Amino acid sequence: MASEQSLANKAYWEAAAAQGPLAPEAVIEGVDIRWTPLSGEPGGVDYLEVDAGGIRAMWVRPKGAADDRVIFYAHGGGFVSGSIYTHRKMVGHLAKAAGCRALLFEYPYAHAQKHPAQLNAAVAAYRWLLAEGIAPMHIAAAGDSAGAILTFGLLQQARNNRTPLPAAVMILSGWLDLALSAPSFETNREKDAFFTRDVVEWLASNFLGDGDPRDPLASPLYAKLKGFPPIFLQAGGDEALVDESRMFAERAGQAGVEVRLDVFPDMLHSFQMMAGRAPEADDAIQRLADWVQAKLGIDPMAGEGA
Amino acid sequence: MASEQSLANKAYWEAAAAQGPLAPEAVIEGVDIRWTPLSGEPGGVDYLEVDAGGIRAMWVRPKGAADDRVIFYAHGGGFVSGSIYTHRKMVGHLAKAAGCRALLFEYPYAHAQKHPAQLNAAVAAYRWLLAEGIAPMHIAAAGDSAGAILTFGLLQQARNNRTPLPAAVMILSGWLDLALSAPSFETNREKDAFFTRDVVEWLASNFLGDGDPRDPLASPLYAKLKGFPPIFLQAGGDEALVDESRMFAERAGQAGVEVRLDVFPDMLHSFQMMAGRAPEADDAIQRLADWVQAKLGIDPMAGEGA
Repeated sequence: MASEQSLANKAYWEAAAAQGPLAPEAVIEGVDIRWTPLSGEPGGVDYLEVDAGGIRAMWVRPKGAADDRVIFYAHGGGFVSGSIYTHRKMVGHLAKAAGCRALLFEYPYAHAQKHPAQLNAAVAAYRWLLAEGIAPMHIAAAGDSAGAILTFGLLQQARNNRTPLPAAVMILSGWLDLALSAPSFETNREKDAFFTRDVVEWLASNFLGDGDPRDPLASPLYAKLKGFPPIFLQAGGDEALVDESRMFAERAGQAGVEVRLDVFPDMLHSFQMMAGRAPEADDAIQRLADWVQAKLGIDPMAGEGA
Repeated sequence: MASEQSLANKAYWEAAAAQGPLAPEAVIEGVDIRWTPLSGEPGGVDYLEVDAGGIRAMWVRPKGAADDRVIFYAHGGGFVSGSIYTHRKMVGHLAKAAGCRALLFEYPYAHAQKHPAQLNAAVAAYRWLLAEGIAPMHIAAAGDSAGAILTFGLLQQARNNRTPLPAAVMILSGWLDLALSAPSFETNREKDAFFTRDVVEWLASNFLGDGDPRDPLASPLYAKLKGFPPIFLQAGGDEALVDESRMFAERAGQAGVEVRLDVFPDMLHSFQMMAGRAPEADDAIQRLADWVQAKLGIDPMAGEGA
């Protein structure tokens, strides 16, 4: 059964659904005001903004963490909201528990620029990170929701350009299929107030413009996954997008990729945003941290959070 | 007339008043969740936690700001709430506009320890700042609400101990009289939903324990002000505490202290927390920044915000 604390995430999405369409600026400000407070402050984490090769970014640096191991993090928000600020605390919890740094980066919202402008920003920030001297084998790429699109787009672009791939991937409530083939849009219809077909179709077309919803760079479900690093996916059992993670995990396994999928019963989209407030989110963050420590070879004694 | 945006602060206090008494932990978490989002993100500001002589503190460092000029900031929250995190963004706006660093520090809540434990923390953090090599003539002490008590307590303790005083003081909606002698408790009764006599008397006794509400270290209105540095006070015209600022400014002037009081019509307690969202708050922050730049000799071209 869902914890009482975790109902805050449910309430957030229900309120968002009840609100209906808003102007882009109102969406961005509303998300900052109502989504950000879901996460508790991790404490003991420093936040330093940085120009990552022309991309606005933020170092998330837990006290005592390994500076040479980095979680490269693409925030979610449907390409209409979210920022390095909305995700600062949640990524702070993750980096602190893992005992490493994280780099959060920004990219254009879809009302300003269409795909692949967002992917280009992710690629530029990743290249900057490599140029900073961080070894690819010490980088985990991660993202929630729309951030999953950028994460897997980045992996494909890196492969195309013979840029070294990161050593591991973590996906939280990934948005993985802009063609909306997941049955869970129907089976979880009554449980997930916000992510209806109509809303997600609008978000997809807003992002794609004239693009193809089966473009592998925009829809990771249609990408060639062979040769990808180990992937850890998490999703909420009640979210409309959960089957996208199931289908993706199945495809990744068939492609010979090491893949793990943890579905959290009763949870909704990006429930990890409740890190520091709800036990399910803390549990999810700890699972990611334990997993990524092994993948990046992080000393489990590093950091205050270890 | 109050801006539409500024109604968020009014709504915050009305909701707090409607909620009634809560357990200390619920107050702290509720404030973090509902008070913090009033402030917009300033952007271009780094936040680094630091152990300030045994006191948990946070450097607020705007990009390009003067590192040798510091606003030493005591957050408010009635000694029952508030933290370096709730005030991070508002103080970030102030430091960015002023073009200098700020140091935010924590102190015990009154349910855990009574006066003067909070003042002792402020004194320890201030001594640490001096030991870091920051010249007193380059420090402005500042605080909102209960933070004003710590700011003026610090000045008195510094004078008693022959520690150099800071060069300037900024007070935002100061809580200055634990004996509640301000007529505005009555005259603003209908306008200020939260700060009733009952509530403020409870907050005062919760902080003082067996202490005297006219103890000058706890009630700045009864302090000897002669020899204090220049003071800039701001208050909201509709708040129950506004006359505390008026009485204090009058006493300061009579003691030969350079003092300025700006009362903002229609505003409630600590309306500056809406920095980045409401024009009245941005105006107030800019006035403080302009004033403190002159007092600390900060190059107006310093920082991104100048």
